[in-house]
Amino acid sequence: MFEEAESDPRLSKESVKAQETRLRTALLKAQYDRLQRADRSLLIVVAGIDGAGKGATINLLNEWMDPRHIRTLAFGQPTPEEAVRPPMWRYWNELPAKGRTGIVFGSWYGPLLREARRKHPDEDIIEARAEAIRHFEAMLAADRVQIVKLWFHLSRQAQRERAERLLANRDTAWQVAPVDLTVHKRFDRLRQAGRQVIERTHAGHAPWIVVPSADDELRTLRTAETVLHALRHPPAAPRIARPPMRRVPDRLGRLDHGARLDKEEYESSLLAWQARVARQVRRKKFAERSLVLVFEGQDAAGKGGTIRRVTSALDVRHFDITQVSAPVPYELARPYLWRFWRRVPEPGRIALFDRSWYGRVLVERVEKLAAPADWRRAYGEINDFEAQLVAHGAIVLKFWLAVTRDEQLARFRERERSPFKNFKITAEDWRNRRRWDDYAQAANEMLARTDTAHAPWHALSSNDKRHARVEAVRRIAQALEAALD
Amino acid sequence: MFEEAESDPRLSKESVKAQETRLRTALLKAQYDRLQRADRSLLIVVAGIDGAGKGATINLLNEWMDPRHIRTLAFGQPTPEEAVRPPMWRYWNELPAKGRTGIVFGSWYGPLLREARRKHPDEDIIEARAEAIRHFEAMLAADRVQIVKLWFHLSRQAQRERAERLLANRDTAWQVAPVDLTVHKRFDRLRQAGRQVIERTHAGHAPWIVVPSADDELRTLRTAETVLHALRHPPAAPRIARPPMRRVPDRLGRLDHGARLDKEEYESSLLAWQARVARQVRRKKFAERSLVLVFEGQDAAGKGGTIRRVTSALDVRHFDITQVSAPVPYELARPYLWRFWRRVPEPGRIALFDRSWYGRVLVERVEKLAAPADWRRAYGEINDFEAQLVAHGAIVLKFWLAVTRDEQLARFRERERSPFKNFKITAEDWRNRRRWDDYAQAANEMLARTDTAHAPWHALSSNDKRHARVEAVRRIAQALEAALD
Repeated sequence: MFEEAESDPRLSKESVKAQETRLRTALLKAQYDRLQRADRSLLIVVAGIDGAGKGATINLLNEWMDPRHIRTLAFGQPTPEEAVRPPMWRYWNELPAKGRTGIVFGSWYGPLLREARRKHPDEDIIEARAEAIRHFEAMLAADRVQIVKLWFHLSRQAQRERAERLLANRDTAWQVAPVDLTVHKRFDRLRQAGRQVIERTHAGHAPWIVVPSADDELRTLRTAETVLHALRHPPAAPRIARPPMRRVPDRLGRLDHGARLDKEEYESSLLAWQARVARQVRRKKFAERSLVLVFEGQDAAGKGGTIRRVTSALDVRHFDITQVSAPVPYELARPYLWRFWRRVPEPGRIALFDRSWYGRVLVERVEKLAAPADWRRAYGEINDFEAQLVAHGAIVLKFWLAVTRDEQLARFRERERSPFKNFKITAEDWRNRRRWDDYAQAANEMLARTDTAHAPWHALSSNDKRHARVEAVRRIAQALEAALD
Repeated sequence: MFEEAESDPRLSKESVKAQETRLRTALLKAQYDRLQRADRSLLIVVAGIDGAGKGATINLLNEWMDPRHIRTLAFGQPTPEEAVRPPMWRYWNELPAKGRTGIVFGSWYGPLLREARRKHPDEDIIEARAEAIRHFEAMLAADRVQIVKLWFHLSRQAQRERAERLLANRDTAWQVAPVDLTVHKRFDRLRQAGRQVIERTHAGHAPWIVVPSADDELRTLRTAETVLHALRHPPAAPRIARPPMRRVPDRLGRLDHGARLDKEEYESSLLAWQARVARQVRRKKFAERSLVLVFEGQDAAGKGGTIRRVTSALDVRHFDITQVSAPVPYELARPYLWRFWRRVPEPGRIALFDRSWYGRVLVERVEKLAAPADWRRAYGEINDFEAQLVAHGAIVLKFWLAVTRDEQLARFRERERSPFKNFKITAEDWRNRRRWDDYAQAANEMLARTDTAHAPWHALSSNDKRHARVEAVRRIAQALEAALD
């Protein structure tokens, strides 16, 4: 795959000049027509041999395309806020909006390349990292993020000569990084690492293209042509299937709604379990963990009241409540999970979600706001997202607060009668209620597909609010105690 | 001011119950009618004596108002990303959008209160911090952020009894923080500090209200009533005047447009100055500083090309380019400088702005997108913003690239002819050009009012692009050398 690049092909300045007008005009047109109008975004991943002149890509693309819609995303050492979150957090955070282009340096390939370049690379680590990248890129591609990956390459000899030429002039010597000077000594290993990474992560929806880089003119031309080709011929989105499931168990239908607590019992139990939660989150050990609490359930099931009973046990400086409603335009312009990745807590903190990323497989599914292909693949994406949180030390608990159909009706009516609760009841709630069975089916499938060992669902009857509140606080206390002891 | 609160007034549970319906209904209505419809946001600052039950405000307001539009903003120890930015950065970052309410714990009063509580407080520090707060709150108030500040207070005796009562029950003992137990010993000093802070920062547009807190019922009622009153009777925005200026000097008119560089001289000078920039930003000392570069100028003055000559000298992992265009809805929903505060670089990084916060006093002034009162106060706000950056270690340079009217016309025509440059020329550019004198006047006033010693303007002739590019890179190199040597 490196044969052409290592033959160090060259081009005259004149032949680039001759093509420049055509290429710039076409690139601009493609940027508008193929990206902005088509509601896609583009990520250009820049990688390759050190000292091949990768950096010139930025100025090239910013000069030849409309720079108002391009951002360079360069990832060096993780910043303090990045270092305390799951490794993929920084990349999610910076995803460009639809119509925009990101030029990515120091991308998610960093850790994989570092391992592959070692003298004795660990095959398991390499495969695990490649697998994570394949998942990530497939998810992005399915969510209308086009990915094209450039590998800048040249021969050992040309790389060395380029570095020495720059070094010889005191005004260009700074362009040579120390690592550039050692490339020729490790060239075979670097080439082998590159080959391996490309082979394991090349995909129709996220292809690798090798750019010969010994010659500045040819590198320029090839880079521009590659980006143009990518814009003009966007690949088909990958098809991500959900695993088959013979029959979805009716977990909601099997819930016992008989549990009741009287006021006195409620108050003493609640206070006792809150105290246990309070003790756990104030432990030193918790400073290295985090807690993610998801609250879902039918309308009027009592999510807000339950959340307040949890936060009563927390220090106000340590938690955030995210009220999730319909995504706004700048959220819609990114892959679905983007807005939730932004809310991933740092260590020592607690994130409560009043509704959550599960909206994809609940309201968006039932109300047909997401295409079937999109919500169907969401189960796997969500499990993967939560697994990344847990792998980084988060304790993830998910609550489904369930009421019966009759109880919901009673609460709707009570809300309508109350002068200060009627804001909580809208035509939408009544509409949702008419789709009770559809929501139940969606909830059951969600429970079946995303109740994982690392991020379990707790389905609780909330016909008696006191029961549900104490149960939720109890399970949080017990999960914390199990995780921290 | 604490007389009533220290008399520890009490209220029966029944009398709160009796008022609850009225208050909740009124609060909700006010939240919708007075905040959302009126395009304002509300910050409720929570402060007072430790162990006065301040924390209960969160659940109270989230239960009595519509919690979807309320966020708790609690600031503890600065997070790593906050610690490396100017102190006000964290507060700017979290400002709620219009229509929304933020409940602020551990607010910008923290440092002031800490100083005021010391045994021997430093009067100069206190006044400097109070002054910074007055500026900040006046700017927010002028930008449609309503501020109400609650000081929770009770007598020494009542504070002690409250802590002891909670401590006596093992299920509530966790609610008592160690600091709560020492309050009674330092009560006079804490009261004196509170009094001082309130006196120095009370303003019509950002009033302090003392909430008696010995009794949970009365505290609840008073808090709700205070917020309701604030929503119903929003104060007038403060009038912030710009200092008088007899005559604005015509700095643009006095620029020498004769400077020219031939190609050879250009290329060698540029390379040499780029190398000096490159050396400076790679020094260890720069890792504790940051660099903020602003590029403004007439349309077609060559901002983009100049920026690319600067970035050629930088490591891609160390800089960010922000292309500033018209604010989008979620930016418009916050005070003007919010979107720029978010782009403040951390130490060791370089932020380049292709157009900037100066849009307020340029395009927004000329095109009447901002009210006169708003752009007039912007000069002071901008100087203050930049002063905060510089105080925190940033090196701030601002460039005005100037072309003559004829040269602009020639460039517009050239852009129209070029198949890959005509995207850069729009009807808006021609419209702006017809307002040449208005823009010149706005630019001159901007230069006069914001050319500060800490963040100087460099007005450069860009009739010859080569000259402007070399000059810009040279001045950056020299500023870096002066700052780091």
